[in-house]
Amino acid sequence: MKLYIGNKNYSTWSLRAWLLVEKYKLNFEEVALKLETPAFYQALSELSPTQKVPLLVDGDLVVWESLAICEYINEAYLCGQAWPCCPKLRARARALSAQMHSGFLALRAEMPMNIRAQRRVELSPAAQKDIARIAQIWRQQLTEFGAQEGWLFGNWSIVDAMFAPVVMRFISYGIELGPLEKAYMEKVFACPAIQKWRAEALLETDIVESDEAGVPYP
Amino acid sequence: MKLYIGNKNYSTWSLRAWLLVEKYKLNFEEVALKLETPAFYQALSELSPTQKVPLLVDGDLVVWESLAICEYINEAYLCGQAWPCCPKLRARARALSAQMHSGFLALRAEMPMNIRAQRRVELSPAAQKDIARIAQIWRQQLTEFGAQEGWLFGNWSIVDAMFAPVVMRFISYGIELGPLEKAYMEKVFACPAIQKWRAEALLETDIVESDEAGVPYP
Repeated sequence: MKLYIGNKNYSTWSLRAWLLVEKYKLNFEEVALKLETPAFYQALSELSPTQKVPLLVDGDLVVWESLAICEYINEAYLCGQAWPCCPKLRARARALSAQMHSGFLALRAEMPMNIRAQRRVELSPAAQKDIARIAQIWRQQLTEFGAQEGWLFGNWSIVDAMFAPVVMRFISYGIELGPLEKAYMEKVFACPAIQKWRAEALLETDIVESDEAGVPYP
Repeated sequence: MKLYIGNKNYSTWSLRAWLLVEKYKLNFEEVALKLETPAFYQALSELSPTQKVPLLVDGDLVVWESLAICEYINEAYLCGQAWPCCPKLRARARALSAQMHSGFLALRAEMPMNIRAQRRVELSPAAQKDIARIAQIWRQQLTEFGAQEGWLFGNWSIVDAMFAPVVMRFISYGIELGPLEKAYMEKVFACPAIQKWRAEALLETDIVESDEAGVPYP
C-alpha cells in the first residue's frame, strides 16, 4: 500500500487515513507531498480524479476520500475491527464519521489545523455552535463508554481518527472544554501515533497561507 | 423501520435514503415532515442530534447522515448487496459516494433540487466544473459497466441513489450532456421508485424559498 499525504502540519484528512494504518502497524509506504505545489498536482494528476490527499494506492486499486479509504482498509486488512462490532454502535459510529466528513464547516474554515501554532482566533456563532456540538458528542460517548479504554466507543475506532484533527485544532487555538472532553483530548494527544505525526509536523517549515488563521498569544 | 424525510420536491438527502428502502421493497413507515417548519424541528428535536432529514429509527436505534443510513440498511437488511460485491469496486463505489456526500458544493448551492421546476440558471465556473466532473464519472462508469444493467456499477447500487438527485437537478435546469450520460439520466428518471417519488413531489404545494433558483424557461 502507498498512502499519499500532504503536509503533516496542515492536512487533516491525511492525518485521519494515516492514523488508521499507523495505529494497526500496517505495512505501507508513505508518500509525502507538499500541499498546493506544482509537484503535488503533478504527482496526483495521473492517479486521482480529485487531485486531493489522502490517496491510497493498493496494487491497481486507487481509493480517494478519507472515509472510503478507511472503509477499504478496515475491510481488506483489519477484518472490520476498526468499527465497533455491535451493528447499532457501528451505525452510530458511521453517522458521526459521516457528519465529521461533510459537516462542521464553520469550525473547519475558521480553525484550520496548524499543529505548530498557538493562536487566538475570533470565532463566528456558527463555529462556536460547531465546537459545542462536538463537545456534546464527546461527552455523550465518553459517558457511555468511559469505563472502557477511554476512546469514543471504548476501544479505538475510525471515529477517533475522524475527530483527531479537531483535537489538534482545539489545542492550537486554546479552546476550553469540560473535564471529560479535556481528558479525551489529552488521551488523543498522548497516543504514540499522534506524537509521531506531530513530531514530523514540527520539523516542517513550509507555510500554507490559506491555513494560517488567528493571532499569536500575547 | 421509520424513515423521516422532508419535502419530496426539495429534499435530496431524503431521496437517497428513501430510494434504497424503496428499491428493495423493505418494510418501512415513511414519516413526511415539511422542511423548515416548526413541526419539522419539533418532531426531530427529541430524536436527532442534527435535526436533519433523512433520519432512520429502527427500534431503539437512531441513525442520521444519509451515508450511514445506507450502510446500516445494507448491512442489517440487504446482506451487503447494495454495494458492488468486488472489494475493489466497493472501494471505488464508497469513494464516489463519499465525494458526493461532502463535495460538489457549487452545484449543490446553485442548482437546488426542485423537481416541479423547469428553470434556466446562471452557473459559476465552479458549478460548471462540478457538472463536468460528474459527467466524467458517469461516462467512465457506464463505459466500464455499460454492457450490464445500465447502472453505474452494472447492477443498481447505493452510488446510483447518491447521484439520483443530481439527475433530477440536471433535468430541472436543462443541463445538456453526452449520449451515455443522457441515457443514464433517462434510465434513472424512468425507474419506478423515482417515478413514484416524483409523482408525490408534484402533488406538493409548499415553497421553500431558499431552494428556489433560476428563472422559468421563456
